[in-house]
Amino acid sequence: MIEFNITPPDDSLRTRVRHKIDNLTKPLHSLGRLEELAMQISLIQQTLNPELRNPCHLLFGADHGIETEGVSASPKEVTWQQMVNFSRGGGGVGMLCRQHGIKLRIIDVGVDYDLSQYSHIEIDKIRRGTRNFLHQPAMTNAEAEQCIKVGAKVVSQCHSKGSNIISIGEMGVGNTSSSSIWMHLLGNIPLERCVGFGSGLNEEGRLKKLNILHRSVERYKGNTDPWNVLCQFGGYEMVAAVGAMLKAAELHMTILIDGFIMTACLLAAQSINPSVLPYAICCHEGNEAGHTVLLHEVLHRQGLLRLGMRLGEGTGALCAFPLIETSVRMMREMTGFTDAGVTKYF
Amino acid sequence: MIEFNITPPDDSLRTRVRHKIDNLTKPLHSLGRLEELAMQISLIQQTLNPELRNPCHLLFGADHGIETEGVSASPKEVTWQQMVNFSRGGGGVGMLCRQHGIKLRIIDVGVDYDLSQYSHIEIDKIRRGTRNFLHQPAMTNAEAEQCIKVGAKVVSQCHSKGSNIISIGEMGVGNTSSSSIWMHLLGNIPLERCVGFGSGLNEEGRLKKLNILHRSVERYKGNTDPWNVLCQFGGYEMVAAVGAMLKAAELHMTILIDGFIMTACLLAAQSINPSVLPYAICCHEGNEAGHTVLLHEVLHRQGLLRLGMRLGEGTGALCAFPLIETSVRMMREMTGFTDAGVTKYF
Repeated sequence: MIEFNITPPDDSLRTRVRHKIDNLTKPLHSLGRLEELAMQISLIQQTLNPELRNPCHLLFGADHGIETEGVSASPKEVTWQQMVNFSRGGGGVGMLCRQHGIKLRIIDVGVDYDLSQYSHIEIDKIRRGTRNFLHQPAMTNAEAEQCIKVGAKVVSQCHSKGSNIISIGEMGVGNTSSSSIWMHLLGNIPLERCVGFGSGLNEEGRLKKLNILHRSVERYKGNTDPWNVLCQFGGYEMVAAVGAMLKAAELHMTILIDGFIMTACLLAAQSINPSVLPYAICCHEGNEAGHTVLLHEVLHRQGLLRLGMRLGEGTGALCAFPLIETSVRMMREMTGFTDAGVTKYF
Repeated sequence: MIEFNITPPDDSLRTRVRHKIDNLTKPLHSLGRLEELAMQISLIQQTLNPELRNPCHLLFGADHGIETEGVSASPKEVTWQQMVNFSRGGGGVGMLCRQHGIKLRIIDVGVDYDLSQYSHIEIDKIRRGTRNFLHQPAMTNAEAEQCIKVGAKVVSQCHSKGSNIISIGEMGVGNTSSSSIWMHLLGNIPLERCVGFGSGLNEEGRLKKLNILHRSVERYKGNTDPWNVLCQFGGYEMVAAVGAMLKAAELHMTILIDGFIMTACLLAAQSINPSVLPYAICCHEGNEAGHTVLLHEVLHRQGLLRLGMRLGEGTGALCAFPLIETSVRMMREMTGFTDAGVTKYF
């Protein structure tokens, strides 16, 4: 597969960043998680004056063969209908990108519908939906490579236009099923703890979904090599997101991670290359069973926001954007004790 | 004292607001707390298309007589120095107001320093600091009335200039002590659970503070009538904030509540008039001991953000502002299923 040359941020600047933060006109550590974000982004950008430039939100859409097993409460047609809705500025994602001045790119990597007439949708379709992973691998190696390339290409384009921060979202009815299996196999967490209610199942539906995912994992006799797991159970939009994350880390960009599905993609990306993690900010901790487990027990992260959201599209990441911006403004704009003539206080 | 004519928002619009929210292109309830905010603000504004107009942030500053007992880790001069810093655009509050396009008003209601030369500070000084409530009431009835009037006046001015949302912050070394006693007497919570580390005490300092507050409460032989409690232990900036909250509720404005001190002010305001509560949004749940207790056990609210902040100035409320804006944009901008041609999904 494609190699990414990812180096973790150079940590030698940490002491100077800490010194600057500790001399801003505020009690020590009193900006809490904003200070942690400021540290992370200062190290990513290797500067005491970080800034967010040309933020881009990438929304990858695709359909899932497993959907035919009835694992989702939503009908499959919602995928293409929502892609069209987004392309016209609708949905949660459109509203949030407008609010925060974020460029939205909508990329069809595998929707089971011809979206070529919609000029605001970029068509990089691998295939009209993955195969049904209850019976066969969801995608071929070549298809997965193609997804990675699409994700990397889109990020490279953003970067070449001056962007240093991306967030990523998805649209794909059925993709919590893929996420649960990735989490199970790559995070080594019992499947029971990885399967939730998706966007609207009841308990009966959840148990049915769990049963189908159990049988899917049994069907697969392979190892837990990340690449194999991605191909076997992935969604095209999810593997594209993995490619986007890996490329963004290679380019030293800050990556905003949304909810359960994007966190599963981050797990996959860091299974391929652990150095991606320091570039990622986990923005929202949702109610989907497994998401908290994945964040706390596997990735050892805490979500920045807990708003009970479960919309997808990357909306949880977009909601966190102003806080990320506050953290870098803190480094650039906030006065220091000496300049402001304030006695250092606690 | 001054009477406020506060009526709770008319609830009869609730069903129509719910219907609109439930028909936006998203799974049911999938925007979590943003949907709750949208409901609350729609009811406050009595419309299906709420909007935030001319947001104002009121920063009230004053000094505290109790400070001489060594209850704070910060020296008293920090109050006036920070007021000057804020007036020049410094501090956390300046940065956040600029980021979110919020008008900042800085009001001296009792700082123990002559700030009249600073044109960006409004002088409504009641007195140069409250009296030491270990030995005597912090303020007279007349002074407290004056504070209420100042708070109400500032809010009326914002409202007459078209504002329908305010947030409130404070600067006053020593004011967590007043807040703890208000919470103890008005919220009926044991003092031990109301006293924390302020902006930087160690455990020894906290125990000393607790001892002084115990003795202060013992000194006071009066009842727990809210008005008496305000006068006995209040800070001028805190009583002004109470006046601002009551007036804002009377004017059907949305009120953004910051951390521990502003939550104690909300408790005081609702002890005077319970109808203020539906107008208030508790924006940040901090680490100060007592704040979580006050929110969960007394006011039965959950803070919107939990970022480990303890800066004061209203910065927790300001950080939440973009989320409040998202919630009203949801009502105004987000497409409905029918218009967007999307099958209703879950």
